[in-house]
Order: sequence, then C-alpha cells, then structure tokens
Amino acid sequence: MSLLVTGSLGIDTVETPHGTAPDVLGGSAVYFAVAATHFTDVRLVGVVGEDFPDSFSKLMTDAGIDIAGLEVRKGSKTFRWSGKYSEDMNDRDTLDVQLNVLQEKGPTVPAAFADSDILFLANTHPALQREMRSQVKNPRLTVCDTMDLWIDSARDDLLATLKVVDGLIINDGEARQLTGKKDNIAAAAALLQMGPKFAVVKKGEHGAILVTEKGITVIPAYPTMDVVDPTGAGDSFAGGMLGYLCTQAEIDDVALKRSLIRGTVTASITIEDFSLTRIKDTSRDEIEKRVRAFSEMLRID
Amino acid sequence: MSLLVTGSLGIDTVETPHGTAPDVLGGSAVYFAVAATHFTDVRLVGVVGEDFPDSFSKLMTDAGIDIAGLEVRKGSKTFRWSGKYSEDMNDRDTLDVQLNVLQEKGPTVPAAFADSDILFLANTHPALQREMRSQVKNPRLTVCDTMDLWIDSARDDLLATLKVVDGLIINDGEARQLTGKKDNIAAAAALLQMGPKFAVVKKGEHGAILVTEKGITVIPAYPTMDVVDPTGAGDSFAGGMLGYLCTQAEIDDVALKRSLIRGTVTASITIEDFSLTRIKDTSRDEIEKRVRAFSEMLRID
Repeated sequence: MSLLVTGSLGIDTVETPHGTAPDVLGGSAVYFAVAATHFTDVRLVGVVGEDFPDSFSKLMTDAGIDIAGLEVRKGSKTFRWSGKYSEDMNDRDTLDVQLNVLQEKGPTVPAAFADSDILFLANTHPALQREMRSQVKNPRLTVCDTMDLWIDSARDDLLATLKVVDGLIINDGEARQLTGKKDNIAAAAALLQMGPKFAVVKKGEHGAILVTEKGITVIPAYPTMDVVDPTGAGDSFAGGMLGYLCTQAEIDDVALKRSLIRGTVTASITIEDFSLTRIKDTSRDEIEKRVRAFSEMLRID
Repeated sequence: MSLLVTGSLGIDTVETPHGTAPDVLGGSAVYFAVAATHFTDVRLVGVVGEDFPDSFSKLMTDAGIDIAGLEVRKGSKTFRWSGKYSEDMNDRDTLDVQLNVLQEKGPTVPAAFADSDILFLANTHPALQREMRSQVKNPRLTVCDTMDLWIDSARDDLLATLKVVDGLIINDGEARQLTGKKDNIAAAAALLQMGPKFAVVKKGEHGAILVTEKGITVIPAYPTMDVVDPTGAGDSFAGGMLGYLCTQAEIDDVALKRSLIRGTVTASITIEDFSLTRIKDTSRDEIEKRVRAFSEMLRID
C-alpha cells in the first residue's frame, strides 16, 4: 500500500550537548518519509531551492523514497532551520529560520501519486494542507500535523482542515492550545470533537496519548539513555505509525494501538544520532525487536 | 503479612480549582496507610499533638489501621500544611507549614510492631528514618521516600539511609537532584548505585519508572480527567505498591512490576476527591477492576 507525505524539506544546523551537525538534511516530510520506508513504499511531495544538495536527494532515493513529487525550484532557496537544545534536551531554542521557498506557492502532487492509499499532511499552512488533500483522489486515511503558529494565526483554516482529515498527530502543548484544555487527557479527548476520528498527542520523553471513539490509550516513551539529537522525533513517530498502518488490512482500534507502539519505537531510534544517520540505516527487524521488548515491558497483570 | 509505616500525620488545608478543603486529615503516613489497607494489615507509627481530632483517629481505626504506634504528645501541636494547586494542578504553592511536633523527638516503634514484614519509612529526616529502621527486627523489605530538603541539607545522612534500605520511592525532580543526572531514566538507573536494590521514580501525571538490577520498566499514569485533589498521590502510590507486595510470597521483578501498577491505580483513586474521602471508601475489587482495564490498555503487540 502506498503512503504519500507532503511537508517541508530543509537544511538544518543542530546543536545538542553531544555536538553540532551543520547543514544536514532535515524537514518534517523527510523525517517522516525515511522512518516510513522501513514499513512501506513512500512517496514524497515538497519543494526546495536550487541550493538543495544532490547528496540529499540521493540519500532519499537510496532510502527507497519516490521523490517524483520533489520540485527543485529555480531561483529559490531551500528552507533553513538552526536550533540549539538545552542540557536536558527537553527544550530547544530556534537560533535561525529562513522560510525561503516555503513562503512561495506550494508544490503539486504528481498525477501518478493521486491514487495514494494513506496521506500524511505534515506541518504547513492548513489551507495548503487542504489544497494537497484535494489533489489525492480517495485516500483510505488522511492524517495531519500542525503547530502553534497556525493555531494562533490561521485557526479557522485549521478547523476547516480538521473536518477533512481522519486523524491528527500533535504535540501536547499544541493540543492544549488548540482545545483550551489544561490537561493533556482532556485535550486529547476534546480533539475528537473537532472532526478527526482519532488523535495522537505526543508528549516527548513522556510518551503519547491515542484517543478514538472507543477510548484512550496512553503509552510511555521507549526508555533510552542514548539521546543524541531529538530533532525529527515527532515526524519519525508519525512516519513509523502511518508506515505500519499501510501494512494493515483494516485500520481499527487494534491496528491504531499497534501503530502507536511502532511510532514510539521508530522515534526512539531516530534520536540516537544526528539528523537521519540512525533512522535511515535501521531495519524493520530492528524496529520489531524493540517493539517486542517494549510490549514485554508493558505486559503487566 | 504485616506492613509498618512511619511518617507524618497532619492537619491540611488544601485549595484546588475544585474547591477548598480546610483542616482535613493528611500526612505521608496517613495517605500511605489508608491506601495500603485495601491490600493488607497496616500498622502506623507517628506523633501528633493534643489538637489532633479524635475523628481523625477514628477515621484511621475505621479503615482498619492499627494505630498503637500513634503517640499523642501532651503540650505539643500537630504538624500543619496548607497548599494551593495551580489551574492545571501540576504545580502547587505551599502557603503555610507549621512543623510543630515534627521538630521534636521522633516516635517509638511499639514492641508489638517490631516483627513487621515490610517497612515503609515515609519522608522525614534520614537520621530518624534509620532510627525507625533499627527498631524493627528483621523486615523482609524496607523502602524509604525522601525530599529535596534532605537531599540539600542532610545528604550524608540520606546516603547512609540508602545503604540500609531495599527500595527507594522518589519524585522525578528529586531523583535528578540526588543523582545529578539531567534525564529521568539516567537518574533512575543511577539511584541503584547508591544502595537500594530497586528504585521507583514517580513522574506524577506522566507515570513512573521502576529500575531493578534486571532492567527498567516505565508505565504511564492511569488516564483520568477526574482529578480533584492531587495531595497524597505519591504516598498512596507507595501504599498501594507495598500493600500489594505484602500479598506476594516472593518479591521478585514480576511482583515489583505488578506492584507498580497497583500503586499507579491506587494513586489515581486517591486524587478523585479531597483528602482521604475517595481512597478510604474504595475496595480491593475496585482497584483490581481498574488494574485489569489498565493492563488491557497497555497490552499491545
């Protein structure tokens, strides 16, 4: 089954207590796509500038991503982000953002991608997310992410987008901001009133909450002491989750719970090295081995 | 099997977004003991002043607690604490503390309690914790709690206490403070280097970490939107955990994991009403029903 992701590609400079990674491949769509390749075929739609290194395109094609939807726009510059993590890596400061090509018109979904089964609308302006959605014929499942910027500045557009998606994957702080609830569990529950059939609230080192019509599931993060660079954890989570759902005949509560644990484990692998170094070289076998250990940890009667 | 707890008894005034509870029964030993009564016989050792209401003693004896170790000291006043919780109930301000009788000499363990099987040394000066420990002959298991005050002001005494206990139950912030680690998982692991055979790091709404020689278990909190008063959650957790261990023939990793989930569920019941209102009236049946739902939530492959 085919998985389509639309979102940002970027050139990141990341500083953590473990060192600095200058000018590395990043962006929400990239982390999502690379993580998802371990489960299914992945198609990527996005736009970069002329300065986007060939080696970055090669990294993606080597990972098995179909980048027919990657537009390299003449005269434009690639999105750039630079950030520095705190000592405990639970906070980060954005040192520099250059939106560049992301401020121009959005990319186009190639005709060959219009039959995609699962669609992930990574974080971007919610109006653009709907435009992307409209270019895919009849996806089995559409899921989106968002961020504080759009909750503040484009709330009506975001509420309209939430009416046309099946699922929402969002950070805890953003879930509280969007719903006005003070408590993560209450916020997760309130998200379902806004349109989606399911919502996932990501709590970083504290795990994730899945809410569906049938109830609430909370799981911790996979316990690790080997965090080198938390960048891309959330998008890798979504990539592992939706990549896994592509392997399932039915997307019901059981499949969603199973996908939640894959997302968690996939994210735990991403953050063990800078940029995509670790996640691109993992394997489904390694992921499933960690899934078994994690399931075993959570099996208590 | 008998469970002995030594710690504070107090008169609390608590304000949360749900209302104010003035002059209610509180204290670490009380929350622990009431929670544990749903699992086993509980003996309490502590000291209060002449102002301690008879109704508070009656509440404890009605709950089945053996208060033969409760000293009502003539001419002294009971410990008082007053606090106000933030809107999201994740923070609280202490409005007033009157240590009163807790500044005087400690209580004495009655001879009839010296054969107790499991001993919980609730938060107090670590030198007094060791003094309490020395009055129990040969407990099968000794577990303690502590707080930031002693980590700062009585570190050497605390390190000595950690050498004579089997287990430590502690908050996440205190675990990081005690070990100097920035990360909760790393802090939990480092606690084992200080003496205890197991440690539990409590993360409030985010669950708990259990670490033993054999590995790390992380579980979320029981998901609830019915939080009325978080006071006593941590001590109820310990009470549910050690109460359950009293029912087990062997205290191994399996029993510890099972006790972790009982502690979590017991705490989730305590916080559904002010003071001891909810936890005193629950039952082992209600706890086990919630344990089954929680286990089911965590069962994912």
